[in-house]
Amino acid sequence: MKLKMMYSFLNSDINIIEKELEETIKTESNLLKQASMHTLQAGGKRIRPVFVLLAGKFGHYDIHVMKNVAVALELIHMASLVHDDVIDDADLRRGQPTVKSKWDNKIAMYTGDFVFALALELMTNIENPAAHKILANTMVEVSVGEIQQIKDKYRFNQNLRDYLRRIKRKTALLIAVSCQLGAIASGVEEALHKRLYRFGYYVGMSYQIIDDILDFTSTEKALGKPAGSDLLQGNITAPALYAMEMGEIKREIEKVNENMAPEDISNIISLIKQSGAIEKSFALSDQYLKKALTILEELPENKAKKTLRDIAKYIGRRKF
Amino acid sequence: MKLKMMYSFLNSDINIIEKELEETIKTESNLLKQASMHTLQAGGKRIRPVFVLLAGKFGHYDIHVMKNVAVALELIHMASLVHDDVIDDADLRRGQPTVKSKWDNKIAMYTGDFVFALALELMTNIENPAAHKILANTMVEVSVGEIQQIKDKYRFNQNLRDYLRRIKRKTALLIAVSCQLGAIASGVEEALHKRLYRFGYYVGMSYQIIDDILDFTSTEKALGKPAGSDLLQGNITAPALYAMEMGEIKREIEKVNENMAPEDISNIISLIKQSGAIEKSFALSDQYLKKALTILEELPENKAKKTLRDIAKYIGRRKF
Repeated sequence: MKLKMMYSFLNSDINIIEKELEETIKTESNLLKQASMHTLQAGGKRIRPVFVLLAGKFGHYDIHVMKNVAVALELIHMASLVHDDVIDDADLRRGQPTVKSKWDNKIAMYTGDFVFALALELMTNIENPAAHKILANTMVEVSVGEIQQIKDKYRFNQNLRDYLRRIKRKTALLIAVSCQLGAIASGVEEALHKRLYRFGYYVGMSYQIIDDILDFTSTEKALGKPAGSDLLQGNITAPALYAMEMGEIKREIEKVNENMAPEDISNIISLIKQSGAIEKSFALSDQYLKKALTILEELPENKAKKTLRDIAKYIGRRKF
Repeated sequence: MKLKMMYSFLNSDINIIEKELEETIKTESNLLKQASMHTLQAGGKRIRPVFVLLAGKFGHYDIHVMKNVAVALELIHMASLVHDDVIDDADLRRGQPTVKSKWDNKIAMYTGDFVFALALELMTNIENPAAHKILANTMVEVSVGEIQQIKDKYRFNQNLRDYLRRIKRKTALLIAVSCQLGAIASGVEEALHKRLYRFGYYVGMSYQIIDDILDFTSTEKALGKPAGSDLLQGNITAPALYAMEMGEIKREIEKVNENMAPEDISNIISLIKQSGAIEKSFALSDQYLKKALTILEELPENKAKKTLRDIAKYIGRRKF
């Protein structure tokens, strides 16, 4: 089953979210509108809005309240991607030119600032102090993580713990908070929205590990960028870390540097794929997935719960 | 009288703000701490916290509530400076190397994101939805202004209205909001905090026009960067706009481009200074100052009001 099919009962609400996303980035600045629209139209799975909406189904769900949180979380995600592309010097994302390549680093920086400010503006429609504290705290953690990611580039003496902390801040926190804020916006009690947070956290960890595996195993066509891009950019992920446990591959991986081209590391990618590191990474992702599914058991039965289970399982198996 | 002397009765509270600023930017990331601390210690007048505190004196002033707003506004200002230095390719600010020159553009981008997120976190201690709406809306306006400023660089066919809109977003809005949020945090009623907003707006406009004049008339030592830097960077301010009303100077100014060095424009700077443009700019600043002082008349009498008047007048006359 395709991801979109799993939450087809949300279709009309997802359409509202898409329209609201477009409405929100309207501005008198043409340049800013174009750069933001470009990022928006590059697509993406809109997985954060989906989590917001599904979590909202555990409370008093009103799409006109929920849409503020759903759109805000997607915009925050977009803003962080625009800034990340500056850091990664990335010219392509999802097969589309990035803002920093289509315009330049400076436009990308302010576009990110603008999109982030729009997200905050939407969030102020949620008049719950706890929601704002959670979001602001997450933003602090995410920016600490972004700096850490720069420091960890091409640092080959890091361990799995460094990696896990990094992906927590890079991905899992924002998915966790998507679930939690969706629940808070629909008036869900604390014990339940904290459980939804933990579900989102574990799913987010699993999701990012799979993403990092696919960067090695998938094709340039499916990824929208050359396979092995992470390693080439010095981003040491689970497959590389497991492979480095074997001395001879470690020596090869440590040779990777920023002056190399994709074809220079194709041999190293093959070595990693043959080393068993991919299987170990899948097992790591599975551990998180299992924890997510266990937490789901503690939630009240409803259609959203079933969908969250389907999505979590899908994430653990996806091949693209 | 020196600026600091005018609000000496706030000294112990200003010290609390300084300590809180340092406390806030503590983080496990050394790099981030250093980059933030560097920006913090580069100094500045802390004029926004002073406005926050003074506006708070019109209501139920509690420094432990006020400090959240005061520190948040200074951090937002700091964050925008760090990002602006990337755009301006500025190596010096207030005589100190900028984050982007001491580290690099990427570190500067994330340091700005981090400092901004800290500001948001502090603001969540103010549980008043109106305060958050005002701040978020201001951040949107400020980022639209930042992009506009890039587009307006070296665009010599702009007029005074373009300039005024730019400095509104660049400076006046954040000072206006400092006054307004300081008042809101101390429970001041709407009619009064809106008046304080307008006072801050006019003072901010006056302040920025003077700043732009000083960039032409002051010395490299006092500015911490070469005189004429604005024009050299393509930032067309009031003195240049008034001078361009005279055809022959216009033709000279239009030759300015990004490949020039400070010494290449020293002749143009002299022409502008002799053209009467500086006097016209002072008169423009004075118009805003008068409006600010008129609004002050409508406020209840207290020590803070007297201080706001002193500061406003000082700003209109300052020579550095």
